[in-house]
Amino acid sequence: LARGIETIEHATVRDNRAATAAAIRRLAGAAPLVIVTGGLGPTADDLTRHALADALGEHLVTDPDALAALERRFTARGRPLNERQKVQAQRPPSAALLPNGNGTAPGLHAAVRSPGPHAAADVFCLPGPPAELQAMFDRSVAPLLRPDPASAIRTQLLHFIGIGEGDAAALLGPILARDREPLVGITVSDGILTLRIVARGPAKRAERAVADTAADIRRILGRHLLSETEAGEPLIAGAVLAALESRRRTLAAVESCTGGLLGELITTVPGASAVFLGGWVTYANQLKESLVGVASELLAIHGAVSEPVARAMALGGLARSSADHCLAITGIAGPEGATPGKPVGTVFIAHAWRDRDDPSEGRAVTSEVRRFLIGGTRDDVRRRAARTALAMLLFSLRPPQDRPRTLLWQVPLDGVPGT
Amino acid sequence: LARGIETIEHATVRDNRAATAAAIRRLAGAAPLVIVTGGLGPTADDLTRHALADALGEHLVTDPDALAALERRFTARGRPLNERQKVQAQRPPSAALLPNGNGTAPGLHAAVRSPGPHAAADVFCLPGPPAELQAMFDRSVAPLLRPDPASAIRTQLLHFIGIGEGDAAALLGPILARDREPLVGITVSDGILTLRIVARGPAKRAERAVADTAADIRRILGRHLLSETEAGEPLIAGAVLAALESRRRTLAAVESCTGGLLGELITTVPGASAVFLGGWVTYANQLKESLVGVASELLAIHGAVSEPVARAMALGGLARSSADHCLAITGIAGPEGATPGKPVGTVFIAHAWRDRDDPSEGRAVTSEVRRFLIGGTRDDVRRRAARTALAMLLFSLRPPQDRPRTLLWQVPLDGVPGT
Repeated sequence: LARGIETIEHATVRDNRAATAAAIRRLAGAAPLVIVTGGLGPTADDLTRHALADALGEHLVTDPDALAALERRFTARGRPLNERQKVQAQRPPSAALLPNGNGTAPGLHAAVRSPGPHAAADVFCLPGPPAELQAMFDRSVAPLLRPDPASAIRTQLLHFIGIGEGDAAALLGPILARDREPLVGITVSDGILTLRIVARGPAKRAERAVADTAADIRRILGRHLLSETEAGEPLIAGAVLAALESRRRTLAAVESCTGGLLGELITTVPGASAVFLGGWVTYANQLKESLVGVASELLAIHGAVSEPVARAMALGGLARSSADHCLAITGIAGPEGATPGKPVGTVFIAHAWRDRDDPSEGRAVTSEVRRFLIGGTRDDVRRRAARTALAMLLFSLRPPQDRPRTLLWQVPLDGVPGT
Repeated sequence: LARGIETIEHATVRDNRAATAAAIRRLAGAAPLVIVTGGLGPTADDLTRHALADALGEHLVTDPDALAALERRFTARGRPLNERQKVQAQRPPSAALLPNGNGTAPGLHAAVRSPGPHAAADVFCLPGPPAELQAMFDRSVAPLLRPDPASAIRTQLLHFIGIGEGDAAALLGPILARDREPLVGITVSDGILTLRIVARGPAKRAERAVADTAADIRRILGRHLLSETEAGEPLIAGAVLAALESRRRTLAAVESCTGGLLGELITTVPGASAVFLGGWVTYANQLKESLVGVASELLAIHGAVSEPVARAMALGGLARSSADHCLAITGIAGPEGATPGKPVGTVFIAHAWRDRDDPSEGRAVTSEVRRFLIGGTRDDVRRRAARTALAMLLFSLRPPQDRPRTLLWQVPLDGVPGT
């Protein structure tokens, strides 16, 4: 949709030559562009190239250039090229091969004649592994897509955190109406709420309509704004890293219930090393004591999932690294581990930071702890906790008037649901 | 498939009445059972019940019982029932409503006549929200599915690691033939290769056929076997944790390029705390020195991505925790960071362990380091490295004759591709 192309159908069929060929023929009659993914590998159930040949009414031939490229690839890795692998150099005579920079199987592009409204459909067969698929789409398919400028589609995504779908819908009111132009859709994933604005029409007008609606939405929900993208993911880690890097600040993390997920999320971003130094996974209590110096009395009195322990983890991490900021997470992800007053989903998140501009010898250290009661499965609680920790840090960098007062799932520190 | 039903196609169409009706008619001709999800709600883009009526050649009528139930539901919540909501009480005259215990929209069940091999197909329209969908499927659809015991379907999945798809296919040979019974399919994800055995026929015979084929496959690829499941995920972390727990051994991890992903993967498993103590994310070199005691000379001479540093990370982690095993990962996930002789994808994985049965004062410590050249994107390299580290540990617990000699992507320690 972001490319101005509307998807009319998505079909998943069996690893079966006849079923795949029938689907290619049927969809080539329904749409001018058909993209087939997967089934291009070397094994016996990789039948997409055979199905394409059937849909074209052709027989596969071996492409000598592709075979040579395959041989070079295998030789470079010191492995022999067996007969099975060689099938990846085959193509229907009328099809072109698409180079694969990230794997062995090239893609295929052919024009399939159809009885439908289009004389022929462009059919692209791309490999299944996501990295190969994405790269080949960007390189070989995207440049061929030339949408009509008079019926353009323009989209924008705004991502928010710390607010629920119901509250957001109540605040946005008529902006979410289904007969509104541009149309605004709402989805939620891992506690991140995404508003998608879609405008159709002449390109300039669609662009202006999207910008106007985005401004309206920002006025209403701006404090919770995390990031804006044209398509795809909310990139929360990227937003946090960019905010810290522009301030030349560094980050460390001390994780318990998330087990490394926060670090993993941050280091998904290439170049994270400019900001993220690393940290500790203090899953067992003994490591909370021995690695980041949480006092055993705190653990004994308050328990590992508590405000004092979360704060001690963040302060201990800050003291044991040269980082400017340290996030700490301790919680009960479930399904086991609930205690009286601390149900599954109870998570304490601490943020400790040094004031780098403090001229005195010992730089001032500040810390903040919030308590959350996060819904969902074990994995939900962990993923949402890691994202909420990043949101706490991101919002702390904003002027006070631009911060949300409270975050989704936040409860008072004493655990009594708020008033 | 686990219910003995074979899926022949999965189609996603637009929120469009004509497109949905056409898909229902087409699929009713192809299969005796069609399940439609979503589009039963009260908003303007919920058009599934209209499409079902069109496919049946009928007009929607209001079901008085359903309307009364809807009114009761709204009254109980103190909300008025508006005109939009009332559409949820409508059905085609020949369709039955399916009760929804978790939401407002009932489901629909109708027999759609078709020109296909079946006189009519059972079409079920179920709500989109996963909780409502699952409950309605379990309550209203599953009991109607009575697979014929004379034509049962039995499946088994065997998961392998450290071997590529091409090599596995060459070793398995005729076992992967498409005309074989039972049929064996092969898929790869994150470096884990899954073989799926599907047998059809009388239940007893299908079970025996699956067991026989599984035994054949184990004989050929057994050294690489990771786990076996009836359906779903390979559960590598679970297999490693179970193997360690049965030996009463504990685990720590020191991660660089994976940034916490290994710990995250391990702690996905509930109860991981019986085995996994935690560890360090030594993303920056300064933390490799200050947290796990990697000598600055090693970093200066060999670089952070090297055999000596990987070994020092694992030994340092072992010495600073009470764990019996410690895994360490250091590598170049890309897209930046390649150096001469160390391209993107270069990863060193170290495993250090204490011999708990050693009676002497200082228990013997053993360490092993392997070098890998892993293909794919930054995320691929990281995910595959974490899984390969778990495989190294798992295989080290097996008797030497049951271990693979080399793992997928493994290269000699000096980096020269092997002979």
